[in-house]
Amino acid sequence: MTPKSLEICFTPASFDAHADSEAVVVVIDVLRATSSICTAFANGAREIIPVATVEEAMEMKSRGYLLAAERDGYVLDFADFGNSPFNFTPEKVKGKSVAYSTTNGTGIMKRASECHDVVIGSWLNMSALCRWIEGQGRKVVIVCAGWKKRFSLEDAVCAGALAEKLLETGRFTTICDSVHAATDLWSVARGDLLGYMEKAAQRSRLRDKGLDDCIPYCHTVDMTDVIPVLRNGKLVAI
Amino acid sequence: MTPKSLEICFTPASFDAHADSEAVVVVIDVLRATSSICTAFANGAREIIPVATVEEAMEMKSRGYLLAAERDGYVLDFADFGNSPFNFTPEKVKGKSVAYSTTNGTGIMKRASECHDVVIGSWLNMSALCRWIEGQGRKVVIVCAGWKKRFSLEDAVCAGALAEKLLETGRFTTICDSVHAATDLWSVARGDLLGYMEKAAQRSRLRDKGLDDCIPYCHTVDMTDVIPVLRNGKLVAI
Repeated sequence: MTPKSLEICFTPASFDAHADSEAVVVVIDVLRATSSICTAFANGAREIIPVATVEEAMEMKSRGYLLAAERDGYVLDFADFGNSPFNFTPEKVKGKSVAYSTTNGTGIMKRASECHDVVIGSWLNMSALCRWIEGQGRKVVIVCAGWKKRFSLEDAVCAGALAEKLLETGRFTTICDSVHAATDLWSVARGDLLGYMEKAAQRSRLRDKGLDDCIPYCHTVDMTDVIPVLRNGKLVAI
Repeated sequence: MTPKSLEICFTPASFDAHADSEAVVVVIDVLRATSSICTAFANGAREIIPVATVEEAMEMKSRGYLLAAERDGYVLDFADFGNSPFNFTPEKVKGKSVAYSTTNGTGIMKRASECHDVVIGSWLNMSALCRWIEGQGRKVVIVCAGWKKRFSLEDAVCAGALAEKLLETGRFTTICDSVHAATDLWSVARGDLLGYMEKAAQRSRLRDKGLDDCIPYCHTVDMTDVIPVLRNGKLVAI
């Protein structure tokens, strides 16, 4: 089998240059959206509906959905809870449909829905995700959610680790500079991943708001086998 | 003096998130626009007028300007020459006004002109540029031209080397993840810069077109002291 192309897009601002209707798109937003989504499914959530705007989030709440929603780390006041993975407990989410809106992660999930598949990536489901992607036999674009069009270190390093794993299967090849950069950053960070993340801007933002308790958890490798995939606008676990 | 903020913007697609009317913007397009611009001034060019579109380039040619213009590495057929630094010889450019249009580099120079200053960076003028920037006492945003909204390894590594030099002066501070990433990539690449660049996509693009003869030259450190700065839409050397 001819190796398939592997690309990384460091911010949603560059997504147009990487978008491909035949590709599997992996969205990574380590702190915290995609880590929380993996946690929600690991804890039995039935489905998660990504909504891009605050207005849509309000609309979903008024229609009776459980709503997780934040902007810049703060819970929207009409939401049931915010963006910490620790909110998505079995008691709260088991068997439930959850509407979900975040600063960076959920917008790009909707934009990428024109591609063949949109799947959620994080450290938490890294190995299971790699196996699933390998089985698809398609071009892969890993999209880092970043921060308001900016590059984010925590997403780039996680993308680098996933890219390395995919390249090691021999099923993928790359001529994408972002893949080389991300795998090199992963090689710098891997000896002390949490120590490396001390310099990430999002790490400081969360600390300033007292929201950094989830950082070691969000960098836990292979906590779950869930593969959240977008189907008709809703994330479901397969 | 309070240290000033230092940021790197990896592609023009993210420029909105970094733009600041008080900032000095350094544009880097190692292969080949900003290396060629430094070469042109080192060889005595009077001024260089960046033009963003093919139509504007044609217009400048019809007004009698010497025109350097390329798209995707190919010389535009009505141009006097293309984008290789080896074109900008003293015989051709000394004392001349040159209109210049390239795939990635010149567009962002025009977009950044709303900022306090736009200055041209490359390996060729690295130390002189660092001294000049240090003297400005302003916030700095280094913008990598990239490739059609994509991240480029050669620009990111050069930006990382410049960022490291600026941070070493003690006059700058950063909370920008791109700066951490770029300086780490520079630390990976520095032992064998040309060897590292073998994996850059632009290196392959140029090789495929037989245009890669300039790559070692474009990675020569401190070949010149010129500081090309944008003044009223024209680059001049100061």
